[in-house]
Amino acid sequence: MKISGQHYRTIFLDDDGWSVRVIDQTKLPFELDLARLTSLAETADAITSMIVRGAPLIGATAAYGVALALHGDASNATLESAIQTLAATRPTAVNLGWALARMRRVLAPLSPDERVARAYVEAAAISDEDVKCCAAIGRHGVELIRTLARGKPGKVVNVLTHCNAGWLACVDWGTALAPVYAAHDAGISVHVFVDETRPRNQGAALTAFELGAHGVPHTVVVDNAGGHLMQRAQIDLCSDRVTATGDVANKIGTYLKALAARDNAVPFYAAFPFSTIDWGLSDGVREIPIEERASHEVTHVRGMTDGGRLECVRVVAPTSIALNPAFDVTPAHLVTGLITERGIAQASRAGLELLYPERH
Amino acid sequence: MKISGQHYRTIFLDDDGWSVRVIDQTKLPFELDLARLTSLAETADAITSMIVRGAPLIGATAAYGVALALHGDASNATLESAIQTLAATRPTAVNLGWALARMRRVLAPLSPDERVARAYVEAAAISDEDVKCCAAIGRHGVELIRTLARGKPGKVVNVLTHCNAGWLACVDWGTALAPVYAAHDAGISVHVFVDETRPRNQGAALTAFELGAHGVPHTVVVDNAGGHLMQRAQIDLCSDRVTATGDVANKIGTYLKALAARDNAVPFYAAFPFSTIDWGLSDGVREIPIEERASHEVTHVRGMTDGGRLECVRVVAPTSIALNPAFDVTPAHLVTGLITERGIAQASRAGLELLYPERH
Repeated sequence: MKISGQHYRTIFLDDDGWSVRVIDQTKLPFELDLARLTSLAETADAITSMIVRGAPLIGATAAYGVALALHGDASNATLESAIQTLAATRPTAVNLGWALARMRRVLAPLSPDERVARAYVEAAAISDEDVKCCAAIGRHGVELIRTLARGKPGKVVNVLTHCNAGWLACVDWGTALAPVYAAHDAGISVHVFVDETRPRNQGAALTAFELGAHGVPHTVVVDNAGGHLMQRAQIDLCSDRVTATGDVANKIGTYLKALAARDNAVPFYAAFPFSTIDWGLSDGVREIPIEERASHEVTHVRGMTDGGRLECVRVVAPTSIALNPAFDVTPAHLVTGLITERGIAQASRAGLELLYPERH
Repeated sequence: MKISGQHYRTIFLDDDGWSVRVIDQTKLPFELDLARLTSLAETADAITSMIVRGAPLIGATAAYGVALALHGDASNATLESAIQTLAATRPTAVNLGWALARMRRVLAPLSPDERVARAYVEAAAISDEDVKCCAAIGRHGVELIRTLARGKPGKVVNVLTHCNAGWLACVDWGTALAPVYAAHDAGISVHVFVDETRPRNQGAALTAFELGAHGVPHTVVVDNAGGHLMQRAQIDLCSDRVTATGDVANKIGTYLKALAARDNAVPFYAAFPFSTIDWGLSDGVREIPIEERASHEVTHVRGMTDGGRLECVRVVAPTSIALNPAFDVTPAHLVTGLITERGIAQASRAGLELLYPERH
């Protein structure tokens, strides 16, 4: 997608042919800084400190981290310790383990002198496949938006989105936002209501930034506002990024939007690539463990002062404690459909197995 | 209610016998400052700048504002212009108009030399009646909490509350929190989950402060978290402050919590005094106009830096716009009951008319 008219990916090989550039997402939306990663340590730190975030992007970054480690020393010991180090950066991201397992499978059988070049090839392949996967989600999902647009000629289609499921979470295109970008690029009049997404404000900071940078009309609202907008018929479509066998675990607050969508007959879709589906689970609310994050994210908010200084301010009474569950689970019966790279499935095991018959 | 063991009201006559003291709520939760109001202008400014807020407290403050105006000059012209000035401070608060109309009715027939003393008497009466009304809401509502406590012996009753419906919004006790204070003071084990309540963070700043100051156990959560907590059976009761003929208009986000409460069989109550009921409305979603407030409240967050400085920081991407509807409407069918000073009513016109037969 574009920033000021120029096409970017969130991660790419530097012109020097070996170091890796990433958009530093801790500085967005206030500064576009292309950080340079030159070592395993820098790559691990970029993931831990959330310079890069979003499960697909974390996977691609980890793959390049292996390549950077081998660029220094392509021994068996380095390969294994690089994988261990990277696996420990964000233990909950599914794609991280998936990408590292793939790098090990491809690289371990090779002799050290073949490994470096192949590691870069494989990391690039993981990145390119993510782009293709997200583009396919966009192609399938845009038909939903096109159908809504045909139903209200001359009017804008309004999509509400929670958290950041855009290209900044992936390598390009995004998951839930891929259909929105595809619609915008195809000349369909689409507008996005962006949930602020407390406590980390990924909607206000990242989704609003990337939509604005690509030129997609959008409006930020607090997480509380979505139900009201749906009651007033100001939302045509809810879109979110998820994981499931029909039930979807996603950023905290998603479930509340799904309830409001059902109460107001607004279609509610989840968009994700195949690698996000956990085929082993059958009851999301009971079986999916929910990460509890630091209370600091609730008690404090980070932003920019009028003077242009990034500052972290406390918003909760100093003697009060805070609880910070990071995700909630939306039961399948509230989900209109699941948008994947293979098409749109019913939110059920049967629906998903129709698209992925090899899993039956 | 108490702060550090000492009993306070949000508004009271100063020891000098004529000026008025209020808790400056713009400085909470970081500083307890008892501002002194000595004139009509200072009183109008205190309401406009939200040094005082909460519909019942605004009504009591306006009444004292009339007394302060007459303390300088008790003429007909001053009485009328004081009422006009105060009425314009916050045009949407119902209690403001109600309190000013009462002051005019009582004071206009009197001669100027009788007015000053009577104005102070009437302002004190409005304050005292609010305290009695909220205490009665507490007496009726505490029975709900007592019943829940009996159903889970030895365990804590968990209440989720949105925005600030505590004593800081009133003169004492509060509306939705009055039953919580009554339960706590009666030795019932009660814990409150406090919604942060973006965009103005009244939950994180005010509700958390007043519960902590009175010693009530509580935990702050972001507005997104309530559905998840209800799914995990961590909420026994939702409580909120509202207005209606069964439908309830309240702080933005209330509707989402009511949907989650219904989906998880959690009782959802609204608590309010008689003066909040609008008997002329029959369809809240269609008929209640929703105030749209400044987008600055969404794009910026105010809090305290580690260095102890109050600072306002931008959290939304600089090129994005924001929308800020201040209230939403929760349909009556989602409300378990309405807690008033006369008892607990079914959320319907018929239910309310049973408690207020004079309105039938």
